[in-house]
Amino acid sequence: MLKGYTLPRTPRGTSSLAPTPPWHYVGNALAVEFEASPVEAAAFMPEGLELSSGRSAAYFIEWQYTSENGEEYLDPVRSQYRETIILLSAEYKGLPVAYCPFIWVDQDISLMRGLVQGWPKQIGSTWITRSYDLPSKAAPILGPGGKFGATLSVKERRLIDAQVTLSELAASLPSPSFASAVNVRYFPELATEKHDLPAVHELVQLKSRDVKISPVWKGEATMSIFDHPYLELPDLRPVSVTAGYRFSFALTVDDLVHLCDLRTGM
Amino acid sequence: MLKGYTLPRTPRGTSSLAPTPPWHYVGNALAVEFEASPVEAAAFMPEGLELSSGRSAAYFIEWQYTSENGEEYLDPVRSQYRETIILLSAEYKGLPVAYCPFIWVDQDISLMRGLVQGWPKQIGSTWITRSYDLPSKAAPILGPGGKFGATLSVKERRLIDAQVTLSELAASLPSPSFASAVNVRYFPELATEKHDLPAVHELVQLKSRDVKISPVWKGEATMSIFDHPYLELPDLRPVSVTAGYRFSFALTVDDLVHLCDLRTGM
Amino acid sequence: MLKGYTLPRTPRGTSSLAPTPPWHYVGNALAVEFEASPVEAAAFMPEGLELSSGRSAAYFIEWQYTSENGEEYLDPVRSQYRETIILLSAEYKGLPVAYCPFIWVDQDISLMRGLVQGWPKQIGSTWITRSYDLPSKAAPILGPGGKFGATLSVKERRLIDAQVTLSELAASLPSPSFASAVNVRYFPELATEKHDLPAVHELVQLKSRDVKISPVWKGEATMSIFDHPYLELPDLRPVSVTAGYRFSFALTVDDLVHLCDLRTGM
Amino acid sequence: MLKGYTLPRTPRGTSSLAPTPPWHYVGNALAVEFEASPVEAAAFMPEGLELSSGRSAAYFIEWQYTSENGEEYLDPVRSQYRETIILLSAEYKGLPVAYCPFIWVDQDISLMRGLVQGWPKQIGSTWITRSYDLPSKAAPILGPGGKFGATLSVKERRLIDAQVTLSELAASLPSPSFASAVNVRYFPELATEKHDLPAVHELVQLKSRDVKISPVWKGEATMSIFDHPYLELPDLRPVSVTAGYRFSFALTVDDLVHLCDLRTGM
Repeated sequence: MLKGYTLPRTPRGTSSLAPTPPWHYVGNALAVEFEASPVEAAAFMPEGLELSSGRSAAYFIEWQYTSENGEEYLDPVRSQYRETIILLSAEYKGLPVAYCPFIWVDQDISLMRGLVQGWPKQIGSTWITRSYDLPSKAAPILGPGGKFGATLSVKERRLIDAQVTLSELAASLPSPSFASAVNVRYFPELATEKHDLPAVHELVQLKSRDVKISPVWKGEATMSIFDHPYLELPDLRPVSVTAGYRFSFALTVDDLVHLCDLRTGM
Repeated sequence: MLKGYTLPRTPRGTSSLAPTPPWHYVGNALAVEFEASPVEAAAFMPEGLELSSGRSAAYFIEWQYTSENGEEYLDPVRSQYRETIILLSAEYKGLPVAYCPFIWVDQDISLMRGLVQGWPKQIGSTWITRSYDLPSKAAPILGPGGKFGATLSVKERRLIDAQVTLSELAASLPSPSFASAVNVRYFPELATEKHDLPAVHELVQLKSRDVKISPVWKGEATMSIFDHPYLELPDLRPVSVTAGYRFSFALTVDDLVHLCDLRTGM
Repeated sequence: MLKGYTLPRTPRGTSSLAPTPPWHYVGNALAVEFEASPVEAAAFMPEGLELSSGRSAAYFIEWQYTSENGEEYLDPVRSQYRETIILLSAEYKGLPVAYCPFIWVDQDISLMRGLVQGWPKQIGSTWITRSYDLPSKAAPILGPGGKFGATLSVKERRLIDAQVTLSELAASLPSPSFASAVNVRYFPELATEKHDLPAVHELVQLKSRDVKISPVWKGEATMSIFDHPYLELPDLRPVSVTAGYRFSFALTVDDLVHLCDLRTGM
Repeated sequence: MLKGYTLPRTPRGTSSLAPTPPWHYVGNALAVEFEASPVEAAAFMPEGLELSSGRSAAYFIEWQYTSENGEEYLDPVRSQYRETIILLSAEYKGLPVAYCPFIWVDQDISLMRGLVQGWPKQIGSTWITRSYDLPSKAAPILGPGGKFGATLSVKERRLIDAQVTLSELAASLPSPSFASAVNVRYFPELATEKHDLPAVHELVQLKSRDVKISPVWKGEATMSIFDHPYLELPDLRPVSVTAGYRFSFALTVDDLVHLCDLRTGM
């Protein structure tokens, strides 16, 4: 009797890429709120969602993760990863939600957890300026005047350069935010006649619990998205940049809400 | 209308991690044939398969890949990857097949293509000695006396060290071989009550076409599998090592045979 | 007229691997104080130094760096790196100093700055548990009960596993400390008859300025150093582990003290 | 008595980043011959050399290396590396030589061997299309019509994209070639008053022995060098591309010729 939440499934079940939830996370995020072209952004909407505006956000996050009993953070190569997430403003049956057209992480464990949640994860390399608990010319302060940078590279091409200069505490998180994300779970068939008939194709809404958020710093931001020969991220290039943010958050994931089977429409 | 064989699905469909098959491959393989403990190996068998003997093989392969029209090999970071595969000798309804308990690759594109085929891929780092078309103290000859090494490391721990010294041309490939592999496709649910009720759980048989195989060199081999705190590969540690091999092969994949839905038994 | 503090030297001097000092650093350190075998440790002493005791320390540090005007921390792949340093207790002309037999970093810029200072840097991969400014099951608190891990891997072999459980604030830094490090600058010749007659071989004492140190947390620790086929680190394996530490520090480097030319003894 | 050709120097001398020469190499090279702007290229000439023309070459090489008795190729992470080299056409006292303004490798051992020879090595990521000994859509043939690509990325930015389509065997290697390279060995001081007074600054001529070269394939080529915020490689962007090449070569290095001490002019 093999065990394991994901492949590989094995006698004791300790080899699976992702263990059985709950999955606990804590991260430092740099975020940039921007306006994408509504025409371009609308073209990324999956069946079941409609674009509500061009308001978009890019999140760059330095995560640490642990499973319920694994204490993976003590062998940090199993626990730490960096992520870039793009979120668009959408509606599902008239309710505001976020939709993620692109997301990149730098660890396979995170990739697998993401696919299960419907995040369209690929491997990419994110770097984010850190603040430290000491004054130094080598680090920004976490406060007015602190300058932070973030970059994303995928398959050895720089895709995003962002910078944020903090100025004040903000009353709210950037928008759109994770809280309301709706994803598409998708797992294709390989049998010749079924290349277009996936085994799994469903609209789902993320659920998280035990969410904690630090004070949110806000300020001015810039963000460049560079040309790319095949990734369509440049379609979502900022028409204007609204603001930048820096905050920490923690959450636990062990559930998901099924909204609609996109194979049957039900 | 979004396009793409896998996530992310996008307006033009050029951003998907894995493109629509066919997928064309060519690789140089170093292989070690060994005997695992039949008791230990039997414990890795999925529902529907039975272990037929302890005869096992480890393959270390340096691949280059391209999609039907993508010419990915001209931007080789999209095309090249290295892989370690472990195969066990199994039977499906009395017919000899191979079963893969563990496989590691070093590129996300390969990871995704693998999951679709039921390969239990994780990210790992494989290194393989190369031969060159010139005599040099820095490389083995591809012939009698040529010594080749291969190593696998996962999350910064060395897992396998193998060495092969070629002595003669062989009449056949190592056994078990890819030709008859049976995999388990598995995609879990995340809704709380369904953590043990996967969306996809099926036994499948791989299909490949346009297979070409070079002359096969054979010789003596050694292989060490090192202790590991959570990966169960050491359960399959060699009781004895039979032989080593070095050969090249090419193949195309665009189909898969459904054998059994393991959720329903049909 | 070419410019640049190190190779490559170029028309505008902006391509050099390491820019002209000063170099500003800030880092989070996990440290383990331990006793090495005095006999083994003494064998690592360079000419001019004597071992004073088996008291040794391993530091695992997550750094951010910037040059005087470069603001490299805004393109953090140029600025951030992780480091493992081993320090032994030595004497130079009767004065207590630290001596570093091994040090690993994960960026070329840091490697080059290190060679200039006489640090015997190699590329290695260090991972260190992070604390966050939010309570989470995924991270330790920076205070009593907080558990931190650190690991080092080199050329795909795990070399060190360390764990520290914090219990109290400490009055002092671990010993030996960086403050008093004496290094050997060494740059060999390649002309056939001079393989043993280096161009540079001198004993130097590090200088840093504008040093700032956070409160220092201390507690119990464990540390394993694993066998290795050619790196001699296992010779310095802990006979006993004294304590673990966690603190931040910042410093600036732009000077070095020449102690002795080991080619001439002057 | 510490041993070792480079740092770290240790009791048994097996830990040094680079071992005592001889160093044996074998590699597969893709090369692009191009014309750079003579004005721009001349600005890269070190003291003692003069530019002879804009004729330049970029080499992309997949190497395997071993020391005299180390058999490093059997633990290939210690042996294999990829390299991009730029060579300019220069004269030394009226004799034609090659000069390398930029070179990138992906392993620390190669970086250190390079610094000792005066190669201005930095860490960069090179990918090169491979041919295989089997016909496959996934690989070019090593012959007329075979298309090969090569790319270079540094600190997560793509710097070079090159493509070569082979058409015929060539009578000679690309020019300028390695055979006549003149390098600058350079090792700076860190004492405050000596930042501009290096400890080592000399013009040297490379020596290699036991050189073997495969048949040389030649054809048409394209090469793009992309903008970069601080690396000056774009100054050497092709004005025109002459030809592309693909060949293998092997050599041994254990000597170097001193030409001139650039600190004293002698």
